[in-house]
Amino acid sequence: MKFGINLSFTVKRWVEAPVWARIVRETLGLDLVQFTYDLLDPWWPDAVRRSMAAEVRKAASDWGIQIESAFSGLANYCFDGLLHPDINGRHASLEWWKRAFDVAVEVGAKASGGPLGGMSVADASDPQRRERRYHDLLDAVEGLTQVAKAAGLERLQVECTPLAREIPYTVEQSRKFLKDLEGRCAVSVKLLIDVGHALYQPLYGPKANMPEWLNGLGRSIGAFHLQNTDFQSDSHWGWPDKRGLFDVAAFARDVRAADLEDVPAFLEIIYPFELADETVLASITSSVMHCRQHYAGELEKKQIA
Amino acid sequence: MKFGINLSFTVKRWVEAPVWARIVRETLGLDLVQFTYDLLDPWWPDAVRRSMAAEVRKAASDWGIQIESAFSGLANYCFDGLLHPDINGRHASLEWWKRAFDVAVEVGAKASGGPLGGMSVADASDPQRRERRYHDLLDAVEGLTQVAKAAGLERLQVECTPLAREIPYTVEQSRKFLKDLEGRCAVSVKLLIDVGHALYQPLYGPKANMPEWLNGLGRSIGAFHLQNTDFQSDSHWGWPDKRGLFDVAAFARDVRAADLEDVPAFLEIIYPFELADETVLASITSSVMHCRQHYAGELEKKQIA
Repeated sequence: MKFGINLSFTVKRWVEAPVWARIVRETLGLDLVQFTYDLLDPWWPDAVRRSMAAEVRKAASDWGIQIESAFSGLANYCFDGLLHPDINGRHASLEWWKRAFDVAVEVGAKASGGPLGGMSVADASDPQRRERRYHDLLDAVEGLTQVAKAAGLERLQVECTPLAREIPYTVEQSRKFLKDLEGRCAVSVKLLIDVGHALYQPLYGPKANMPEWLNGLGRSIGAFHLQNTDFQSDSHWGWPDKRGLFDVAAFARDVRAADLEDVPAFLEIIYPFELADETVLASITSSVMHCRQHYAGELEKKQIA
Repeated sequence: MKFGINLSFTVKRWVEAPVWARIVRETLGLDLVQFTYDLLDPWWPDAVRRSMAAEVRKAASDWGIQIESAFSGLANYCFDGLLHPDINGRHASLEWWKRAFDVAVEVGAKASGGPLGGMSVADASDPQRRERRYHDLLDAVEGLTQVAKAAGLERLQVECTPLAREIPYTVEQSRKFLKDLEGRCAVSVKLLIDVGHALYQPLYGPKANMPEWLNGLGRSIGAFHLQNTDFQSDSHWGWPDKRGLFDVAAFARDVRAADLEDVPAFLEIIYPFELADETVLASITSSVMHCRQHYAGELEKKQIA
């Protein structure tokens, strides 16, 4: 089982590359990370970006950490992205993705990804505009895979999100999306499945379960996000958390049963900005140890402790 | 009492200017808004930005809405901003603020603002670097007021946040910050006080109260953010909410007692992205009606209903 961590927990706190690299390696005992664009906004001026990306690459190398991919964080998720109702908004998002690919390559990642975008309520409620947005999205992704290839990336990683205005948001839509892209893409397009998205009951109902996603999408899945959740919100909580109900050991069994052990799973916990730093550090540590034991199965409890 | 709304509730849902303008005027019965940069990222390319800002200005004019100010949203708050530990990060933030001023002017606002930034844990724990970050911040704000004046703005609006790594975060630090800027600024620098920040008990203790903020800062306050909160998180909930404990009617009395009735108060509710659109619309409507009745005192309950 491949287990690593998304750097979301470092945002606004342990932002210096040598600082988070040391925490990842020494405190958490991990050597696999997913970089977050919340640490280095692709919009930042080129010289700023290159200088900071070089520091990230060096720190990862110094600490023996592999940056498997770079991924959209909270900042970029605040916008409608490639599904913005205004062509100007979609144009801006295309530009963001191109710049994000540069950052991904500069930090040493092989893939870049994130949620693709969200439709406005007005567009989503109009069948014709909804269809138009979908086909524009396919064109945008096709074009972006060419840019990704030219930049030197191997994979575009598309996150499924728990909103009917976003694409893709169901197993069925994800399959159609990938089928409609067949033969059009310059690099591989894979899905990222976040367990808290996939099991969000207000949208998918009380019977939502991981085997349906795993069996329905199989080798189209390029990565997972792990989080603790009550299935009633996109919670991104850690362990222990008395509100949380997600069983990582059961998920590990599902992943093995679906023959997807080689797909990397990244813990992605999102803490409130105002939460005390020591509380965050304690929580991310206990969460990683929980997943190392119950998901990765790599250590006995007493060895981790 | 001046009461308006921050456009945070429209993000990713009702993003088209004529759509949100109609909701603000017809559904919520308001004519005063604070624009959020989460609707139009200052980083977007100039042509994109100008075209979209012109649409915002036109929609506001068409619907008789005053855009009092433009303000940082969630996206920009994901970064360390003007307190970033790396000079490159601070440079990027300065550039963001300059571009934000352009957007503010283009949408027709007289002021621009937001939280200024957050120190990394490493910088915040080192007294010398902490001091250095503070003085660099004063220089940055001085410079930005010159840019704001040249752009045509009248005021820079600095938000107090409930984190000891951010500046300013207490009444005392806010007073010192403004005093240290005296005689240095080309436009007026005022504070924005968010009631949920000001009463965050894990940082300020159980005795935190609004009169201390109002009496301690007085005419230095340029605007308020209203939200419902349990005082244990920066909640940004609406009304009704069974978790929420904030009494807007009591706050209105405090504002009158401090002789600050003319300071605009903007409701700022932040909904989970995945929450159903109809739930958000119902909640923002009931929240506005609650504040119109209990904060602005403008209508009897039956008239609003």
